[in-house]
Amino acid sequence: MTFLYKADPLRGAQWAERFAQRAPQLPFRVWPDLGDPAAIRYLAAWSPGDLAETLPNLEVIFSVGAGVDQFDLTRVPQHVPVVRMIEPGIVEGMVEYVTEAVLAVHRDLFDYALQQQARVWQALPVRAAATRRVGVLGLGMLGTAVLERLKLFGFACAGWSRSPRLMDGVDCYATDASLDAFLARTDVLVCLLPLTDATRGLLSRRVFDALPDGASLIHVGRGPQLNTADLLEALTRGRLRNAVLDVSDPEPLPAGHPLWTQPRVRITPHIASATRPEGAVDAVLDNLRRHRNGEPMLGQIDRERGY
Amino acid sequence: MTFLYKADPLRGAQWAERFAQRAPQLPFRVWPDLGDPAAIRYLAAWSPGDLAETLPNLEVIFSVGAGVDQFDLTRVPQHVPVVRMIEPGIVEGMVEYVTEAVLAVHRDLFDYALQQQARVWQALPVRAAATRRVGVLGLGMLGTAVLERLKLFGFACAGWSRSPRLMDGVDCYATDASLDAFLARTDVLVCLLPLTDATRGLLSRRVFDALPDGASLIHVGRGPQLNTADLLEALTRGRLRNAVLDVSDPEPLPAGHPLWTQPRVRITPHIASATRPEGAVDAVLDNLRRHRNGEPMLGQIDRERGY
Repeated sequence: MTFLYKADPLRGAQWAERFAQRAPQLPFRVWPDLGDPAAIRYLAAWSPGDLAETLPNLEVIFSVGAGVDQFDLTRVPQHVPVVRMIEPGIVEGMVEYVTEAVLAVHRDLFDYALQQQARVWQALPVRAAATRRVGVLGLGMLGTAVLERLKLFGFACAGWSRSPRLMDGVDCYATDASLDAFLARTDVLVCLLPLTDATRGLLSRRVFDALPDGASLIHVGRGPQLNTADLLEALTRGRLRNAVLDVSDPEPLPAGHPLWTQPRVRITPHIASATRPEGAVDAVLDNLRRHRNGEPMLGQIDRERGY
Repeated sequence: MTFLYKADPLRGAQWAERFAQRAPQLPFRVWPDLGDPAAIRYLAAWSPGDLAETLPNLEVIFSVGAGVDQFDLTRVPQHVPVVRMIEPGIVEGMVEYVTEAVLAVHRDLFDYALQQQARVWQALPVRAAATRRVGVLGLGMLGTAVLERLKLFGFACAGWSRSPRLMDGVDCYATDASLDAFLARTDVLVCLLPLTDATRGLLSRRVFDALPDGASLIHVGRGPQLNTADLLEALTRGRLRNAVLDVSDPEPLPAGHPLWTQPRVRITPHIASATRPEGAVDAVLDNLRRHRNGEPMLGQIDRERGY
């Protein structure tokens, strides 16, 4: 009865440490060091590929991410439940990351970084947060938490979601019909949408042209939602002023990709809301206990819906 | 009866616009375009130099900054009151700037910027905010407001002040005797002290060596509080990991200064809590009204104490 981890090896070492403390009786292995495939009952992975098909006694797959869109569910045997990660650090991390990015845009830190490179000491005009219009695409658990924090800074906040939502102090837009109105009032666009057929390629020239001139993009959704060529073009035209990208397509972003060297693009390697090893392992162990007791696991996905 | 502005010319244009709207009957000039010196009754300045001595009918000097330490008060005639800027944007701006800087350090954005330059996509270990110890030097209006915001992110917060203070959810240290204990528990040191003889040169090797290894500095106090040579040495040794500097000595920082090109130093041109033109002009006009009605002005400094 072995637990196998197949994701970032650096975090794998942290998982191993936490497992050793919290569940010393459960053998823990980090892929590709499988040992006996027949012994593996549990798998935690970012993307299992075809691994699930090769483990005859697999009982549960845990996603190490908040979603499972990176899973090819057709390659997971039907009898194996798939569980997504529900861990408080995911929300906390996303709130930290987006708050920092919005403040960096708001306070002209991209401009000041370029001035520092040129050794120029020159103050730029200051704007009050109340005049800076932030708009969040996606009003799920993450989008809502991000907006609640941004409200405290006094930003003019709005959100857009497919189905109508209500949030105190946030202008809520819903359905495709209101997307353009939402974009037209948004200086800083934050993408926190799930990846679906409807959102694939959404961040394209059409969306960038619907924003006010000189708007900025903070993309913390999923890489395939962004049309990279359109982004580069919008930055070159000055239509978009800055972009903060935590996701790319593909990941890792290839070393030769032109985005790496854009002066007004900040790239981080999908770390905005990484699960914390301690919280993630505790969530997994709690679900293992539920699984053994025949209780429903928290975050088990519906194979039909795909989330 | 003319109002003269002598500070950043870009902001001067914004002041002129606001004055034209709010007090169109009051002639407004931007230095060095003085016109008739005898007509000037009011002066707003970052640092008036000897200007006050050359204006025979000057009635009030307004500092455009939150402090007047940059004034040479011996060159301001005794009968001319000096008023510092009290404007909500000062606090709001400082909270924005320091929150961004603490989050940038906390989320390893200096490291990711260096990785982006090298086109490296590599996630670094994540730490919960609760394990990140932030310490603020100075618990005045700004330090208190900054800590109240940082608390919401769950950081382990402490503050140090010369005289004892109490803040809910913040470990408060006071007096020189406890400075080392405060520094020893501080991963991210924020300086928000006023410039006095006691704080000049305070941020020196002695302080850096009292911090935990790999701590970071966010300096939003005054330039002469920092020993630049000691900072460069501490960064080179790796004793300090990152520095965010909004102030320097002298200002502007000379183009040849080695700080400009340090990879783990971010420099901004004293903009952390710039007064907003609208709020600043409104505060000045409110004080002019008080002055004409013989009421006490808000923020008038005590020439004996110097603040």
